[in-house]
Amino acid sequence: MKRFLDLADFERAEILDLLALAESLKNKPQRQALAGKVLGLLFMNPSLRTLASFQTAMAHLGGSSFVITPGQGTWQLETRLNAVMDGAAAEHIREGIPVLASYCDALGVRAFAEGKSLANDLSESLFRQIDALCDPPLINLESAVNHPCQALADWRTLDELETPARAKFVLTWVYHPRALPLAVASATVHMAAMRGMEVVVARPEGFALPREIMEKARRAASASGGSVTETSDRTAALKGAQVVYAKEWGTTAHYGDAAADARLRAELKDWCVGEPWFAAAEPHAKFMHCLPVRRNVAATDEILDGPRAVVRLEAFNRLIVQTAVLHRMLS
Amino acid sequence: MKRFLDLADFERAEILDLLALAESLKNKPQRQALAGKVLGLLFMNPSLRTLASFQTAMAHLGGSSFVITPGQGTWQLETRLNAVMDGAAAEHIREGIPVLASYCDALGVRAFAEGKSLANDLSESLFRQIDALCDPPLINLESAVNHPCQALADWRTLDELETPARAKFVLTWVYHPRALPLAVASATVHMAAMRGMEVVVARPEGFALPREIMEKARRAASASGGSVTETSDRTAALKGAQVVYAKEWGTTAHYGDAAADARLRAELKDWCVGEPWFAAAEPHAKFMHCLPVRRNVAATDEILDGPRAVVRLEAFNRLIVQTAVLHRMLS
Amino acid sequence: MKRFLDLADFERAEILDLLALAESLKNKPQRQALAGKVLGLLFMNPSLRTLASFQTAMAHLGGSSFVITPGQGTWQLETRLNAVMDGAAAEHIREGIPVLASYCDALGVRAFAEGKSLANDLSESLFRQIDALCDPPLINLESAVNHPCQALADWRTLDELETPARAKFVLTWVYHPRALPLAVASATVHMAAMRGMEVVVARPEGFALPREIMEKARRAASASGGSVTETSDRTAALKGAQVVYAKEWGTTAHYGDAAADARLRAELKDWCVGEPWFAAAEPHAKFMHCLPVRRNVAATDEILDGPRAVVRLEAFNRLIVQTAVLHRMLS
Repeated sequence: MKRFLDLADFERAEILDLLALAESLKNKPQRQALAGKVLGLLFMNPSLRTLASFQTAMAHLGGSSFVITPGQGTWQLETRLNAVMDGAAAEHIREGIPVLASYCDALGVRAFAEGKSLANDLSESLFRQIDALCDPPLINLESAVNHPCQALADWRTLDELETPARAKFVLTWVYHPRALPLAVASATVHMAAMRGMEVVVARPEGFALPREIMEKARRAASASGGSVTETSDRTAALKGAQVVYAKEWGTTAHYGDAAADARLRAELKDWCVGEPWFAAAEPHAKFMHCLPVRRNVAATDEILDGPRAVVRLEAFNRLIVQTAVLHRMLS
Repeated sequence: MKRFLDLADFERAEILDLLALAESLKNKPQRQALAGKVLGLLFMNPSLRTLASFQTAMAHLGGSSFVITPGQGTWQLETRLNAVMDGAAAEHIREGIPVLASYCDALGVRAFAEGKSLANDLSESLFRQIDALCDPPLINLESAVNHPCQALADWRTLDELETPARAKFVLTWVYHPRALPLAVASATVHMAAMRGMEVVVARPEGFALPREIMEKARRAASASGGSVTETSDRTAALKGAQVVYAKEWGTTAHYGDAAADARLRAELKDWCVGEPWFAAAEPHAKFMHCLPVRRNVAATDEILDGPRAVVRLEAFNRLIVQTAVLHRMLS
Repeated sequence: MKRFLDLADFERAEILDLLALAESLKNKPQRQALAGKVLGLLFMNPSLRTLASFQTAMAHLGGSSFVITPGQGTWQLETRLNAVMDGAAAEHIREGIPVLASYCDALGVRAFAEGKSLANDLSESLFRQIDALCDPPLINLESAVNHPCQALADWRTLDELETPARAKFVLTWVYHPRALPLAVASATVHMAAMRGMEVVVARPEGFALPREIMEKARRAASASGGSVTETSDRTAALKGAQVVYAKEWGTTAHYGDAAADARLRAELKDWCVGEPWFAAAEPHAKFMHCLPVRRNVAATDEILDGPRAVVRLEAFNRLIVQTAVLHRMLS
């Protein structure tokens, strides 16, 4: 495996195979599988789980890793093609990426959406540049509209919870003080569709997922036997839900317009998941979130501290599935 | 050992045993003792020695480590229970700690005093929260009123200097431009008392150590045969001293009141340890400090560059004793 | 080898020997040569390549490393002797360096020029202090006027390109929005001279390399059979060049005077290497730069993306030669 950029790049059987490898490595660690191998980690945006879980995964397999964080001990990296670099950025990714890639056996890169042009972010123009600049295996640590490590971890979490393939999976928008990227929402709706679930996206008006994201998920659903719909009727969406997956994202109706986004979301503070949301859900419905989560803003303490929340398990599964990705790439 | 949070949690014999293990591992390194093991290090406050010495200790034992520093490549972590998280902090320790803990075999956490309520800081309310959230072994890398790694290193340093158990040990307040926490002062007075020394705390009016700290030290002294007193008469305190341990801390009379603290300390710049302080001390009396130390503010160049200073040895002993703590916890 | 501070500290034969070791370790990795060994890395200034390549080199040799970055998770370090430390810096290098050095088997330190007094920076007064404070092997990761790791990597790059010993090597000043240090320019002119090349320094008036730097390079040239000249006639300099090595640096005529520097460089934006610069060069002349490079400021996209640029190879060779330095020091 040379690239781990998008679950959609893999056949369903390949995903199942990766998940089986993850389980197997959890039960029978291979402490020397990546001895002498080095993973480079480039974080153009903040990280907690991703950094810690990838460094741990490499250590568990006998390898090493280094971390580069532009703006924190390293200068900012320029990403615009043909830029006249007389501003803050001291190095272009056209040098930075191939140089770091030349030091390591695989490179992981986090590069969030720019959040200005929806078309640009949907096209993954930045990550495609990075892809073209990186010779060794490359891992997407979250790009403009994708987060395959999170999606794979969530798939495993659903399996561990013995969630039926056809269960109702509600991806719901939740409140956040400001616009966040579409990456996890996009990856999640696709993952759940690919897993064969009955996916419903519940979001306020102005926050519909982009058509391209929905169509991609629907293609996955039609191959898996699942379905994907969306609605602004939260109550209807939650009825019969077995999984409520909460995520914050910015307005798509006025993408990149912070003022319009702020006006829209000002009225939406009640999109904070609480126990009443589960009134008509399945009795043991679970609450998922990729973390970090703002308590009492996106979800209440009651939910996060209660039996529905499986957010810690999702986070732990980041380590488990990434270990398999690294092993598949590098052993 | 599942917890290394406070020397007071251990019997004297257990401390001596840890110190013996430290000596033994220094002489006969066990290069594979922790192969495959991972230490997580979470620094909610800055570090130099602690980070470098713990990463080195893990490497010496064949293990690995990762570092998370909120505010430096990772978002701020919220610590207040029931907070409505609409501010700067993007993640609560109620998620952050168990997630990081799930990735590693032991977790070290640094979380300084909040410095607002003395009762709150004395109760270690934050670190007790952290303790409850962390399943694997936990190491206190400096909490509100404790720093057991420093205390253990200093105990070893006193042993290496062949300081008699009953020697006079003066913990003296020294000047700093602003209030610092009570952690090292509290840990030091307790450690010296537990070691059986004649402990005298010299500090200006307004900077008395809290009653709870003094009582804890006195309990240790009564078990060990030592003693603990305090005074604002610096000259009397220093008479016959074999060890002068300098530390900066904030006013306790007006705890958390920066303006009152500033007014009090404005007159106290002469609390900077110089050679004249040793006029009536034992001839070969030593100068100790946990570092970082502000030269010519807390102690003069003459002292720090002279034969009394053992501050580098104390810092080196951090590595030696922490290697034993990790070995005891994880091998 | 206890010190790697300056190529001038080594005989030519020793350099060739190090380069041979680098080649040998590239072809036959020694995965356990530094098992149990720890490299400390202290970055008083930002880094990308140096951090990543040194951590990787240690991992390739079976060792470990830690990174300390004052200002990023660690407080600022004071460097001035006899300072009254009542400002931002919380620790002096007189404590910080020996303490970090006591934790590791070798220490690498980056400490750029202060940029105030030319005499002071030329004397490497700061790095000589650091040298005196560090017991174990010490590596210069870029000091006031030196960068031996870069110079050694560039030497290897020239060898790989089969550049004849007597080829014309043009070190040219290029534009940058503000003054940068003399370290790479100084190390490069000396390296090329020591390699026996016909070195020409092309720079605008006001940016002549200091006499001490030129004399040191000329001494190396006279031993190797090379030559060193300088000129402000760029066109003449570039005629017949086989290598054009671009570097940014500040005015030496008004060293440390930011306003004078800004006035001088305001007229010099045409010192951006483009294909026309090569009109009278050798047909396959190469373009070198130590990176980071500002695109379309120091060199055009056309150059950096074209066949002349060997900047990625130079960066990769940092890893290769540093592996040899570490092996020689620690195995």
